[in-house]
Amino acid sequence: MKMNHIAVVVPDVEEALGFWRDALGLPFGGVEEVPDEAVQVGFLSLGDAHIELMAPTTADSGVARFLEKRGPGMHHICLEVDDIDAAIEELAAKGVQLIYEVPRTRENGTRYTFVHPKSTGGVMVELYENPERG
Amino acid sequence: MKMNHIAVVVPDVEEALGFWRDALGLPFGGVEEVPDEAVQVGFLSLGDAHIELMAPTTADSGVARFLEKRGPGMHHICLEVDDIDAAIEELAAKGVQLIYEVPRTRENGTRYTFVHPKSTGGVMVELYENPERG
Repeated sequence: MKMNHIAVVVPDVEEALGFWRDALGLPFGGVEEVPDEAVQVGFLSLGDAHIELMAPTTADSGVARFLEKRGPGMHHICLEVDDIDAAIEELAAKGVQLIYEVPRTRENGTRYTFVHPKSTGGVMVELYENPERG
Repeated sequence: MKMNHIAVVVPDVEEALGFWRDALGLPFGGVEEVPDEAVQVGFLSLGDAHIELMAPTTADSGVARFLEKRGPGMHHICLEVDDIDAAIEELAAKGVQLIYEVPRTRENGTRYTFVHPKSTGGVMVELYENPERG
């Protein structure tokens, strides 16, 4: 198991790039719109993991509500697993609360779920099956 | 530059190990007391980075106040730099706000500072010079 990314919610991706790309010098992988989640996402490489900057594009998305309630900051961490079905089965059997007990699939084919922060000590943990590894 | 660790504030390290060590299966590196910061810390390996679980040991430490104010969750991320003096000089010249403009030194000899969340988009970022690499 390895870290895939850390997601950070910010009001504005371009403004946050002033630190992560321009001051810190992390390689910048571009910005994408994710209409399904009403966010704009910017990617920066950090070793073999990355930082994902997320800014809401509507006022009523989950990310917009997070920003309003908690302010900017870390939103979740994403861990790569080889087999997400096996991971979900094992975690559920151990009493871990999953947000999706059947993994969801993104447009690019990656399958994912989230562990509820109640089960982790306050951290939203995404589990992600990397199609190149899984 | 690479990720060294993600620090997570929890009320109780042993309880949080129920997820990170027992359910998720991350290799556990033991618990340490850090009296200077009034915390108990548990280490778990995640690829070549690690998760640091931190629980306050007094009611009035910075970590205790964080827990009271924000609840359990991610506290900071730590990035390894080769030369912390050069990193501080470069970041300060770019207008980045550092918590210690002269790096502090831990008992084990590692030198570190923090970037203020105001400069990063809400994330407390520790910069750490790994003595084995720096």
